[in-house]
Amino acid sequence: MNTNDVLAELGRILAERKQASPDSSYVASLYHKGLDKILKKVGEECTETVMAAKDAQVDGQTEHLIYETADLWFHTLVMLGHFNVPPEAVVTELARRLHISGHAEKAARSTTAE
Amino acid sequence: MNTNDVLAELGRILAERKQASPDSSYVASLYHKGLDKILKKVGEECTETVMAAKDAQVDGQTEHLIYETADLWFHTLVMLGHFNVPPEAVVTELARRLHISGHAEKAARSTTAE
Amino acid sequence: MNTNDVLAELGRILAERKQASPDSSYVASLYHKGLDKILKKVGEECTETVMAAKDAQVDGQTEHLIYETADLWFHTLVMLGHFNVPPEAVVTELARRLHISGHAEKAARSTTAE
Amino acid sequence: MNTNDVLAELGRILAERKQASPDSSYVASLYHKGLDKILKKVGEECTETVMAAKDAQVDGQTEHLIYETADLWFHTLVMLGHFNVPPEAVVTELARRLHISGHAEKAARSTTAE
Repeated sequence: MNTNDVLAELGRILAERKQASPDSSYVASLYHKGLDKILKKVGEECTETVMAAKDAQVDGQTEHLIYETADLWFHTLVMLGHFNVPPEAVVTELARRLHISGHAEKAARSTTAE
Repeated sequence: MNTNDVLAELGRILAERKQASPDSSYVASLYHKGLDKILKKVGEECTETVMAAKDAQVDGQTEHLIYETADLWFHTLVMLGHFNVPPEAVVTELARRLHISGHAEKAARSTTAE
Repeated sequence: MNTNDVLAELGRILAERKQASPDSSYVASLYHKGLDKILKKVGEECTETVMAAKDAQVDGQTEHLIYETADLWFHTLVMLGHFNVPPEAVVTELARRLHISGHAEKAARSTTAE
Repeated sequence: MNTNDVLAELGRILAERKQASPDSSYVASLYHKGLDKILKKVGEECTETVMAAKDAQVDGQTEHLIYETADLWFHTLVMLGHFNVPPEAVVTELARRLHISGHAEKAARSTTAE
């Protein structure tokens, strides 16, 4: 299964669980609890990702970091699912940036950076 | 260009900019500043994503939320690039979860949940 | 100068800078940029605090962690200042919790915990 | 009870609960679970503070924001307690900043800002 299929399939599953009974799955219960609970999880997973990266810096092991990053992406997809936005929307936005060269990127950032 | 191509191409570009001169692009300069600076950006982008979701809840507009989510994913990819881990690693981990049914997912979570 | 004086004085200074010209100080410019910019800083300082704690775990040094925690508290006070809430409000809320015994605390948490 | 007493008393209670049985209170159990669990809570409380601020921006109510800010400060104090650092250390660092004028503050920030 290629990346495209994975994210698209994930999008389909998340949309499905949004309609399901709150006690049928973790994702269904999260959707039922509402946006604030989903965002709290996004913040929590981000903190865990940062901690995992600090650990990887010390022990050189990246398995846990990959796991936490996937957890973070997963919860941002649940968040987007709350707004009926599919995973493809994020990929389309990332694709847009591919065509920006290093120098153009730098110039674009310079004008908006704090 | 499909999702697979986008993330793979993004991985290639990030790896390339890691070797480039710090002042050739935003990403090159971020790699040069080191892991803590990259993680600080990950935390910052996560906060911006949460704020964008709260705004979307009020005004129903999701464009900015998609943009901030892409920014968050992008910076986690720079973080993984610091450890020479390609985007595909995150997708592989997400794929692994696809085969977990709602009930199995719930059971798995229940044993590890705080 | 005791803690009480420090936080009260800090509250006075933050209120003062809120009225000042944006280019007279960092805090004045932050107030001028608005709530989202302040919250972005709160999120950023929180990430830096978490990273400093992970570093302290490795090297046993706590100076940087204390500095980052103060930075985090400071930016939450700027945030409260945006809403004209003085530092004393946080201390009053913390005081309320002092009278909660360990067991009562546990019971209270158990009913609200996820 | 003044601010000074509140933070000092809170420091005493947190030190006490660090020695207590893990099931005697929420704080005792948190200390027992270790630093990563404490930091995860710090990150979570920060996200809740940011969300509460966004809500306050919409409805003008600040009670919940004050509550979440106190929760965030509380968990940073548990984090410092893990390293045997008392609340007074944060206040001392904040006091140091009181003597920095707006212009000196701005100059100091300018040299370190990203």
